[in-house]
Amino acid sequence: MNPVHLETLLAIVDEGSFEIAAAVLGVSPSAVSQRIKALEKETGRVLVRRTSPASATEAGQVLVQAARRMALLQAETRSRLQGRLERVPLSVAVNADSLATWFRPVLADVAGFEAATLRLHVEDEAHTLSLLRRGDVLGAITREATPVSGCDSTPLGIMRYRAVATPALRDAHTRGGVLDWATMPALRFGPNDALQDSDLEGRLDDSVRRHRAVSQIPSSEGFLEATRVGLGWSLIPELQAGPLLESGELALLDATVLQVPLHWQRWRLESELLERLTASVAAAASRLG
Amino acid sequence: MNPVHLETLLAIVDEGSFEIAAAVLGVSPSAVSQRIKALEKETGRVLVRRTSPASATEAGQVLVQAARRMALLQAETRSRLQGRLERVPLSVAVNADSLATWFRPVLADVAGFEAATLRLHVEDEAHTLSLLRRGDVLGAITREATPVSGCDSTPLGIMRYRAVATPALRDAHTRGGVLDWATMPALRFGPNDALQDSDLEGRLDDSVRRHRAVSQIPSSEGFLEATRVGLGWSLIPELQAGPLLESGELALLDATVLQVPLHWQRWRLESELLERLTASVAAAASRLG
Repeated sequence: MNPVHLETLLAIVDEGSFEIAAAVLGVSPSAVSQRIKALEKETGRVLVRRTSPASATEAGQVLVQAARRMALLQAETRSRLQGRLERVPLSVAVNADSLATWFRPVLADVAGFEAATLRLHVEDEAHTLSLLRRGDVLGAITREATPVSGCDSTPLGIMRYRAVATPALRDAHTRGGVLDWATMPALRFGPNDALQDSDLEGRLDDSVRRHRAVSQIPSSEGFLEATRVGLGWSLIPELQAGPLLESGELALLDATVLQVPLHWQRWRLESELLERLTASVAAAASRLG
Repeated sequence: MNPVHLETLLAIVDEGSFEIAAAVLGVSPSAVSQRIKALEKETGRVLVRRTSPASATEAGQVLVQAARRMALLQAETRSRLQGRLERVPLSVAVNADSLATWFRPVLADVAGFEAATLRLHVEDEAHTLSLLRRGDVLGAITREATPVSGCDSTPLGIMRYRAVATPALRDAHTRGGVLDWATMPALRFGPNDALQDSDLEGRLDDSVRRHRAVSQIPSSEGFLEATRVGLGWSLIPELQAGPLLESGELALLDATVLQVPLHWQRWRLESELLERLTASVAAAASRLG
């Protein structure tokens, strides 16, 4: 298969449109379209969904995965042979709470790699693996320990979440020394906040849950801030809540610790950059304990 | 139309699935399915796309919009008549940079409303209006001044962006006192970062742009941190970059100020909660200047 055609496929998937891919590659949109048609004729399959954003079909994903591996190896080989600096994009899927806490040093490490850029995709830790399966990323922070096909998996540690609220909110919903979880307003990150749901089991029965007041703040830092100003109680990573618990701005609501084990899954591939990235992620995760 | 059926439609759109909507409403999934079928029979239209996540069709959006307005008015009326506290969800679309900066006090204000929860949707300021048009939110922070049908629009002020980098990164790409934008690695928020693209016009010609090294960090706070550790230069709101510019950790790259005017568009509706929310947003936006 023509490497220029494969590069074009990657640009479409990364940019989400034929037009932007054309601009990035410095060619006309019709040239982009012709290259994809040529690839589709060669493979006898439809490779790209012409939706907005454009995305790879299942057959296209097989090609995307292979093309990304090849692009990484080729760029590294060229850099070594020619001593010419060629930036390789390292695409990584990470959950929002990790990016807001222990993952931060990885940004500085990659800044020091010289020959790499970092392309982050932020996704719930229960869903990052689908990005890895699709070939959109070469590595993912995930809850899943079992390696997906063609990948290696390393345990990173445990993300520990605590139920917290402002002392004022807690006191307003405490009757006779007992906290009333049913009346206290709550926070969730988004509609599919599996963490928040799983933690409520045992604290609230279903009949009460549906009447709860729930605010939604889909930003890790915004979520912490909404908790700090008393919009609701929430589950916050210990790493993030620590300073506010110490200062007394936030209070623990119970002794339960929700433990989310995190793993680093990445392509099984001989690549110096991927090795360095893996070492950086593992070092940063030492804060998880 | 049966108000219980409309409430069910809203739950599906908010939760993104028939199953979760059933759990939230405390009924069986088949009851949810029957209610939607009844609504669809009554209107003679398909109202819900049975995709993952589930979403309203165009006909469904008309009903969603009306149902949300009614739900807000009914809840306020009941609260007033019965003196019973009923939490009303206030759904708002906001851009990530606003949520990370001037919008923060709105969280505290809504926490003090007593009868409301806040449901935030984070979206690029060029795209928040589609959420308002679809009826997913009752108010939106947007670049667009012209009010959409059935809405009022208020100017909030100007979000001012500056091109910044670490002094080390700037110096490494300065030759003979001239900054070389083409070789300096850059940051973008996501694939459709219109801001970053528009700002490059005049600084770089197209032939150079396509060879640039671009890292991607889709989190406002992560974006600032990536700039601080030298992963690339970026466009940062003055409100956010201020302290790092003063401490010398970041440096301005040129004198250009990219100005993004922001507006608050919300339903035209007699609602005390919506009025209070509008006042809160306007007060917080006074920081924009």
